[in-house]
Amino acid sequence: MNFQLLKTDAKSAARAGQIETAHGLIETPVFMPVGTQASVKAISPHDLDEIGAQIVLANMYHLYLRPGGLIIQNAGGIQKFSAWHRPVLTDSGGFQIFSLSKFNRIYDKGIRFRSHIDGSEHFLSPEDVVRTQRRLGSDIMMVLDECVPYPCEYEEALIAHKRTIEWAQKSLLTFSRTEKDSMHNQALFAIVQGSTYKELRQQSADSLIELDFPGYAIGGLSVGEPKSLMYEMTALCTDLLPADKPRYLMGVGKPEDILNAIEYGVDMFDCILPTRNGRNGTVFSRYGQFNIKNAQHKEDYTPLDDSCDCYTCKTFSKSYLRHLFTAKELLVLRLLSLHNLHFYLHMVRQARKAILDQRYSEWKTLFLDSYHQNN
Amino acid sequence: MNFQLLKTDAKSAARAGQIETAHGLIETPVFMPVGTQASVKAISPHDLDEIGAQIVLANMYHLYLRPGGLIIQNAGGIQKFSAWHRPVLTDSGGFQIFSLSKFNRIYDKGIRFRSHIDGSEHFLSPEDVVRTQRRLGSDIMMVLDECVPYPCEYEEALIAHKRTIEWAQKSLLTFSRTEKDSMHNQALFAIVQGSTYKELRQQSADSLIELDFPGYAIGGLSVGEPKSLMYEMTALCTDLLPADKPRYLMGVGKPEDILNAIEYGVDMFDCILPTRNGRNGTVFSRYGQFNIKNAQHKEDYTPLDDSCDCYTCKTFSKSYLRHLFTAKELLVLRLLSLHNLHFYLHMVRQARKAILDQRYSEWKTLFLDSYHQNN
Repeated sequence: MNFQLLKTDAKSAARAGQIETAHGLIETPVFMPVGTQASVKAISPHDLDEIGAQIVLANMYHLYLRPGGLIIQNAGGIQKFSAWHRPVLTDSGGFQIFSLSKFNRIYDKGIRFRSHIDGSEHFLSPEDVVRTQRRLGSDIMMVLDECVPYPCEYEEALIAHKRTIEWAQKSLLTFSRTEKDSMHNQALFAIVQGSTYKELRQQSADSLIELDFPGYAIGGLSVGEPKSLMYEMTALCTDLLPADKPRYLMGVGKPEDILNAIEYGVDMFDCILPTRNGRNGTVFSRYGQFNIKNAQHKEDYTPLDDSCDCYTCKTFSKSYLRHLFTAKELLVLRLLSLHNLHFYLHMVRQARKAILDQRYSEWKTLFLDSYHQNN
Repeated sequence: MNFQLLKTDAKSAARAGQIETAHGLIETPVFMPVGTQASVKAISPHDLDEIGAQIVLANMYHLYLRPGGLIIQNAGGIQKFSAWHRPVLTDSGGFQIFSLSKFNRIYDKGIRFRSHIDGSEHFLSPEDVVRTQRRLGSDIMMVLDECVPYPCEYEEALIAHKRTIEWAQKSLLTFSRTEKDSMHNQALFAIVQGSTYKELRQQSADSLIELDFPGYAIGGLSVGEPKSLMYEMTALCTDLLPADKPRYLMGVGKPEDILNAIEYGVDMFDCILPTRNGRNGTVFSRYGQFNIKNAQHKEDYTPLDDSCDCYTCKTFSKSYLRHLFTAKELLVLRLLSLHNLHFYLHMVRQARKAILDQRYSEWKTLFLDSYHQNN
């Protein structure tokens, strides 16, 4: 993996770059559609190509439980398994173990937990998590980290931060040791933790930078803290992290969150909002969000967004999409997810262009002025 | 609408023809994917084009209740509403009123029933059903008929048959009266009823032929009667119906049922099996049916059917599809429905080719020998 910083915005820390991987180039800033179980919900690889997705996120925790790392390894890796031939990033699933699995318990050596699927008991060490991601063959792997909820006592956050650093060291060691036997050309990213404590965030970033990872994620945000704190912690981290490594803000977020974080110098994003919202009828458009269920769309024969060139907008009217949603027709879940993903991908592509043109802040203001018209 | 008979098989009544409609040509025999609510479940119009669908079925009863005929009329008809630009046949929904709606009661003037969606009370006369289909703008409309269950007493079947004939007359009158004000070029098909009584089937066919419809359906079959009776009634009807009009066997059926009915001279078919089976994991292949859930597919990295050229088979393995199904990923509903529809469409296209080559029976034997290997 190789990251190249191409340009930094004139008036902000926003930056445009590119990441070279074994499965192709990723232009940053980039939005990564979420395909937790090796499938972006209701969306095919062909759909992803059509809307210009460059990289997809999958989840080690889910894939370890089902179908299991060996099934994917024997398929030739996650790309061959899922027929998505561009880059894949796998999250370690630390966050999912804490939020989904039952009876999880953290030890210095790893996490004991019960599967949310069948209740079976499992133990995963940071080393196991690297080895499983070697089987998956993702282009970018994430270390196992300990996520704390918000709010979190300083003492608890300190312990979790220290453990996350120790786990990062162990992960890196396992990564190096497994490199020569691996079929795939992979990179391992670290995750900065530290809850909302500046001092811990600083220590976390410093320690991980010293270990010299090829990329860094900012974790443990967007877990219920006030938005101002999320921004403060993001800006603090991007200030600390090296300019020549990609930065990934995990699980964020709404369109305005992403555009603000880009301004702080974040390069990579993932979020379930476009697909989850699509499945409950919420549509993103350049004039803000709306729900397709609303009666006002009953006889509206115009597209969701008249400036959008996705298949859904080029083909169907709000009236028809509302009918499909009301009639519980499966097709609408795909059509709305496709449109929302296209909205996110297109927004971040426009952001990148604005950075390259050295006018990011102006573009962002214009975009959000339009976006907040209805919200 | 114009039907042209191109060729009849050397050793059977199987026939190849074509139907010209305002929205294009339909080559018969033809399988019509079912899009009850103006959407083939989990399948987009683009998908339908890709697998070579020529005509789609929708349902007057469902669309009358939701979104209502006016919404579709104001969209410019069902094709513009649903973005499917090839021919559409709308079933009158007689069968659905009897099977889905609550408290339905039949009068000589029409049917009173409660909506299966919200319990609201409705009355539909045969005239109403034609008028609503005028609003929908389907290329082929069906008359309202009275469907009887199996088994059915002779007296009850006789009354239903007589009413169906009276309703057919009224429908034809309304069809003629509404023709000049219609925005669409439509045709109205009649439905032969008579349960499993030869005498009633004969009377039904005779009376409807006298009314000179441009096409005839065979209704009231595949409702629980023994297969031999279904075939007997189908063959009886196709013998009676005029050679120069298309014949449509409603709601049939399994692959072997369709191929046998083609041999009796049926031209048009619809069935929910490919999509409904797809959604429960059942796959049609040239070696028979199987369920993708079965453990034997866990590490099977070959396609569903190695001779199939649908998107699903060209792109994904059984192992991945089984994973998606087990993990309840929405994408798999579309991928299996697409494959199954392709199987049906391809099978009927091959049947047509065999008729044109004057070797239908030989082809059918070969096809079913392979198909029954696993079943």
